[in-house]
Amino acid sequence: MRHLTILLLGLLSPLVAAWEALPEQAPYPADNPPGAAKIELGKQLFFDPRFSATGTVSCNSCHNLMAGGDDSRQTSMGVHGLTGPRNAPTVWNAAFHSVQFWDGRAKTLEDQAKGPVVAHVEMGMSDLDAAIARVRDIPGYVSQFEAVFGGEQPVSIDNAAKAVAAFERTLITPNSPYDRYVNGDQSALSEQQLRGMQSFAELGCVACHRGPAFNGPLMPGGVGFFISFPFHDSPYVEQYGLRDEPGRFAVTQDEADRHKYRVPTLRNIALTAPYFHNGRVKTLDEAVRVMAPSQLHKQLSDTQVADVVAFLNALTGPFPALTLPRLPPTPGRSVADPESPATP
Amino acid sequence: MRHLTILLLGLLSPLVAAWEALPEQAPYPADNPPGAAKIELGKQLFFDPRFSATGTVSCNSCHNLMAGGDDSRQTSMGVHGLTGPRNAPTVWNAAFHSVQFWDGRAKTLEDQAKGPVVAHVEMGMSDLDAAIARVRDIPGYVSQFEAVFGGEQPVSIDNAAKAVAAFERTLITPNSPYDRYVNGDQSALSEQQLRGMQSFAELGCVACHRGPAFNGPLMPGGVGFFISFPFHDSPYVEQYGLRDEPGRFAVTQDEADRHKYRVPTLRNIALTAPYFHNGRVKTLDEAVRVMAPSQLHKQLSDTQVADVVAFLNALTGPFPALTLPRLPPTPGRSVADPESPATP
Repeated sequence: MRHLTILLLGLLSPLVAAWEALPEQAPYPADNPPGAAKIELGKQLFFDPRFSATGTVSCNSCHNLMAGGDDSRQTSMGVHGLTGPRNAPTVWNAAFHSVQFWDGRAKTLEDQAKGPVVAHVEMGMSDLDAAIARVRDIPGYVSQFEAVFGGEQPVSIDNAAKAVAAFERTLITPNSPYDRYVNGDQSALSEQQLRGMQSFAELGCVACHRGPAFNGPLMPGGVGFFISFPFHDSPYVEQYGLRDEPGRFAVTQDEADRHKYRVPTLRNIALTAPYFHNGRVKTLDEAVRVMAPSQLHKQLSDTQVADVVAFLNALTGPFPALTLPRLPPTPGRSVADPESPATP
Repeated sequence: MRHLTILLLGLLSPLVAAWEALPEQAPYPADNPPGAAKIELGKQLFFDPRFSATGTVSCNSCHNLMAGGDDSRQTSMGVHGLTGPRNAPTVWNAAFHSVQFWDGRAKTLEDQAKGPVVAHVEMGMSDLDAAIARVRDIPGYVSQFEAVFGGEQPVSIDNAAKAVAAFERTLITPNSPYDRYVNGDQSALSEQQLRGMQSFAELGCVACHRGPAFNGPLMPGGVGFFISFPFHDSPYVEQYGLRDEPGRFAVTQDEADRHKYRVPTLRNIALTAPYFHNGRVKTLDEAVRVMAPSQLHKQLSDTQVADVVAFLNALTGPFPALTLPRLPPTPGRSVADPESPATP
C-alpha cells in the first residue's frame, strides 16, 4: 500500500507543486542579518512583559513558544483582560511568510513587531516612544543595544524590532515527519498520513497551501499571497461567522480585498486550535471539513477528513530547545509600575 | 577598613545570629522527595496557562522566573484583568519559608500551590476539580503523572501540587555575593556592602531578618515567624496605607494577629520592587527608610540607607539556568477554550 501511495504521488507530482522540505534557515532582509547577540537581545524583548501598559503582557503571552506559538484562545487577551477581533497566528515559521498579520498589513517581521505594543487590546502602550523609553530605562538593555547596533541612538524602536525579528527567524521547525519523508525517509509517515498527503494533493488543498511552509507560492518579501475566505457559500458561513469582518479590505479599502486573508502556514497547525481568522472553529477536524466546501466546493468523507488531519499532524515540530532568558533588572525599583488598586 | 569591618562583625557576632550561607539544597517533606521526572512535570505545570479560566495565567505570570520571581506590579493581575489585594511574594527561595503567603495561611508549598488556581482574581478556575479535569484531558500529562506517582488515581490535585512544589524547591539562589563572603571569599562584597552588612546588624534588622534566607529563625515546617508590621507608628502608616488591611487576623480571627505578617525573605529583594504586603512602596531605598522607624524606632541617614541597600543587593542571585519546557499538546483541539468575544 505504501509503495502504491508513493507511486501515485509520483504520478501526481507534475500536477502539483513539488513537495518541499522546510529550509534549515529562514530568509532575512539585507538590513537585518542575524547574529548571536542580536538574537539573544530579541529573545529577551520577546519574553519581557514590562513593555505593556500593565506589565503583564509580552510577545510570548499570545505567541507561547512552549506551545504552538499561539495562545489556544479564540481571540487573544491583552492588558486589562481586553480581547481583540482575531485569532493569534503562530509565530513558529512566521519567518517564512512574505507578509504578516491575517490581513498582511505588515510587510516584514520587523514591521509586525511594533504593532501589538501599541494595540490597546494587546500590550496597550500609549505610543512606541513610551515603550522604548522603558527599554532605555533598563541598563542591561542599553548595553546590549549599544553592542549590537552601535551608532548615535542605538536604543530605538526600529532596532528593537530588528532584534525581535532576528530572534523570530530562529523560531522555525524543519525536520518534521513530513520533511524527513520528503528528504527520503520513507518510514517517517504512517500509511494514513501518506493517504492524507495524497488527498491533500488530489482535493486541491495544495493549490493554496503549497511551498515548504504550506502558505503559498514563493513571493517577494512584502508581497502577500491573499485568497478569499470563504470562496464559496456554505452553511458554515453563518454557523461560524466567516464573513463577519472585512479581512484585507480594512487595509486597502479595495472591494476586491473584502474577505481576503493571507494564506496561513499549515506548519504546526495541529497545535494552534482554535482555527481561522476569527478562531470560531474549535477542532482541526472541523476546520478541514469547513475548508473543503468553502474553498474547493467539495464535501469530504469522514475518512478523508481523518486522513488529511493525520497528514497535517506530520507538519508538527520538532521545536528548537530554548533556554529561559534572564530579563535585565532594574535593582531596587520597577520599570513597569502601573497603578493597580485591588479589584473591588 | 575592610579588616576593621570584619573585626567589628566578629565582635558583634555573639549579639546577633551568625551569618549563614544559603544551603545548596532546600528542605523537603518526607512525603514528597524530589526526583527529576517529578521536577520536570512540576515545571511544565508551573508554566502552563491552560489551568486558568481564560487560558492566559500560569504560576509564572505572577512569579516570573525570568525576573525576580514576582511580577513588578503593586498587586498582581489575574484573569480578565482582575487584581488582588497583595503584592506577589517571590517564588525564588520560597522553599526556605516555613509557611506560605503573606499571612502564612498555607503550611507548605504543596498547600500554597492550590490557592491561586481557584482565586477568582488570579487563575479564576471554578474549583480544583475543574482544573485537574483539564490536566486529565492532556495525554502528555497523564502519562507523566502515571510514571511519577503511580497508584489508582495518579492525576490528582494533591499530586499536581506535589510536582509544582518539587519544582519550586529547585528555585533557590545559593552562592550570592553574600554567600561567597560568608564562605570565605573576602573580595565578594564591596566596602559599601560590608558597611551595610554592619549597619544591618547594628540597627537590629537582623533581629527578624535572620537565618540563611533572612526570614527569621529556623522554624518547624508549618509554623510561621510572624511580626507586626508596622510595629511603631510613623507618618508612613498613613502615607502608604500600612494598616489598611488586617494581615494574619484574616486567617486566625485573633486580635493578636492583626497587622502581623510572615517575615519575608530578603533574598533577591533588589529584584522584587515594589515593596511590602500592599506593594505601595516603589523603591528599595524607600522600603529601608520605612522599615527603620516602623520596626526599630530609628531614623536612618542617607548614607545608612545607601549602605544597607548596597548590602541587600549582595543577596541577589545567581539564578539557575532553566530550559523552556514544552507543554504537552492536545493535537487538533484546545483544552482551555474560554469564550472570548472581542472587546467592544
